[in-house]
Amino acid sequence: MQFKKITIIGLGLIGGSLARALKESEEVETVFGIDSDKESVQYAIDKGIIDKGSSDIKEGVPGAEIIVVSTHVGIITDTAKSIFPAATEGSIITDVGSVKSSIVKGIEQALPDNIHFIGGHPIAGTEDSGVKSADSKLFNGRRCILTPTAKTDLEAKRKVSSMWESVGSEVHEMDAETHDHIFGVVSHLPHIVAYSLINTVLKAQDSEDLLEFAGGGLKDYTRVSASSPQMWVEIFKANKSHLLDAISMFKNSLQEIEDAITSEDFDTLKKELDKAAKTKRGL
Amino acid sequence: MQFKKITIIGLGLIGGSLARALKESEEVETVFGIDSDKESVQYAIDKGIIDKGSSDIKEGVPGAEIIVVSTHVGIITDTAKSIFPAATEGSIITDVGSVKSSIVKGIEQALPDNIHFIGGHPIAGTEDSGVKSADSKLFNGRRCILTPTAKTDLEAKRKVSSMWESVGSEVHEMDAETHDHIFGVVSHLPHIVAYSLINTVLKAQDSEDLLEFAGGGLKDYTRVSASSPQMWVEIFKANKSHLLDAISMFKNSLQEIEDAITSEDFDTLKKELDKAAKTKRGL
Repeated sequence: MQFKKITIIGLGLIGGSLARALKESEEVETVFGIDSDKESVQYAIDKGIIDKGSSDIKEGVPGAEIIVVSTHVGIITDTAKSIFPAATEGSIITDVGSVKSSIVKGIEQALPDNIHFIGGHPIAGTEDSGVKSADSKLFNGRRCILTPTAKTDLEAKRKVSSMWESVGSEVHEMDAETHDHIFGVVSHLPHIVAYSLINTVLKAQDSEDLLEFAGGGLKDYTRVSASSPQMWVEIFKANKSHLLDAISMFKNSLQEIEDAITSEDFDTLKKELDKAAKTKRGL
Repeated sequence: MQFKKITIIGLGLIGGSLARALKESEEVETVFGIDSDKESVQYAIDKGIIDKGSSDIKEGVPGAEIIVVSTHVGIITDTAKSIFPAATEGSIITDVGSVKSSIVKGIEQALPDNIHFIGGHPIAGTEDSGVKSADSKLFNGRRCILTPTAKTDLEAKRKVSSMWESVGSEVHEMDAETHDHIFGVVSHLPHIVAYSLINTVLKAQDSEDLLEFAGGGLKDYTRVSASSPQMWVEIFKANKSHLLDAISMFKNSLQEIEDAITSEDFDTLKKELDKAAKTKRGL
């Protein structure tokens, strides 16, 4: 066993899956789960997803070597700050947020000297949510990005890496701004675009007729944004500046295609589509 | 058997699948296949997809009760016109193009009095193409839209409906402009958007890094546009005006979301996302 106690705050899909995967890894003596929803805690105890649980941060945080904040993006920073007083000296806080710069800055600015922090983002998820969807294989073979800074303790980084590796993840490191730029383009922008596309249909006068024929292509956008709007608003808010850059880039690309159609420059249009199609086949 | 001879021009995925499905339906005495590619014709004969075949329109068209033009959208009108001289009096021409107004107008304007025409669009397809992907179940349970006009012969409409029903399709009727508006929004626009999104990534300075993390959401756009760029250029060209309207509607929806993010109006943003998410779950 590598770890005596790991505490997970927020028993949703990600937190619950991490708890379950850590239990199965047999690398942790005690997996402690904290959630404000008492039913989720009880469910996790009953199903053996966690060893112990509570709705009180003061109960689960002391003695934990690693505390994983796996709440919604919008409250990760405040949740992390709220556990500083209860955390044992030398313990490591990490998180699972899809946006990193604002979280890493917010937590590092307030971090006491005797507690460590490193930001994390496991690239995993499904359309489901909640502890009942917890899946011990969720992180298996998937990447987990850690975003160390100049302040990051190397031993803390090693331990958090080791935790993710023990659930099958492949750990990558990059700085938080690079992370937010990349995921602004490859993840957050596609969601913005999918939402915009669906709203285009909803705002049309004949939206019911349009929806009846959604199988024509629109339906493929369903999976992209089946997850919680609240979660996405928090992500868009936290990654505002990179996301606005990504939207601006996208608008330029759309404009080029629109211009080619308007001016009937079908050779250029064909070239644009060829480039995209080739890339997609390679993904 | 309802039909003595049905001729299909263009043995691609749609034409080949229709031939195979008609053979299996046992409602057609002779399914005749025409394709400029001699290998496709030979393959279709060898595999029993068609009863007879040729690369010469003059060989397959005479005596056919229904002639289905299933070439690429860009050459449907000219192909239909080219068979007028060879068609037997009273025979019915139909097509499978994803765009209808321009095709229906072009063919009806030139149509001789003794030949009938009705436009069609089977809502079916896969990422595959070519006669080797021919699937007799492709149209089973899928819609086929027919676009009759004031000039359409009712008996011709009945026969073409009956042909599609015999391969399992549910036949809908609408006028060609309505069809092109609806599919401009629900099918052509999503493809434009997917192409634009992929090109956004390709044009970025760090496109290789971005592509490495495409699993974050971008990859969901793959399926939408895995089909042939040439085919889509022809569709975009043929449906230019409805498509430009659809792009304009989409840009407005995107702008509303962008404005909400810029002005940090997250209540409005949440409302926009909620509407979209609810719809998607219902699709």
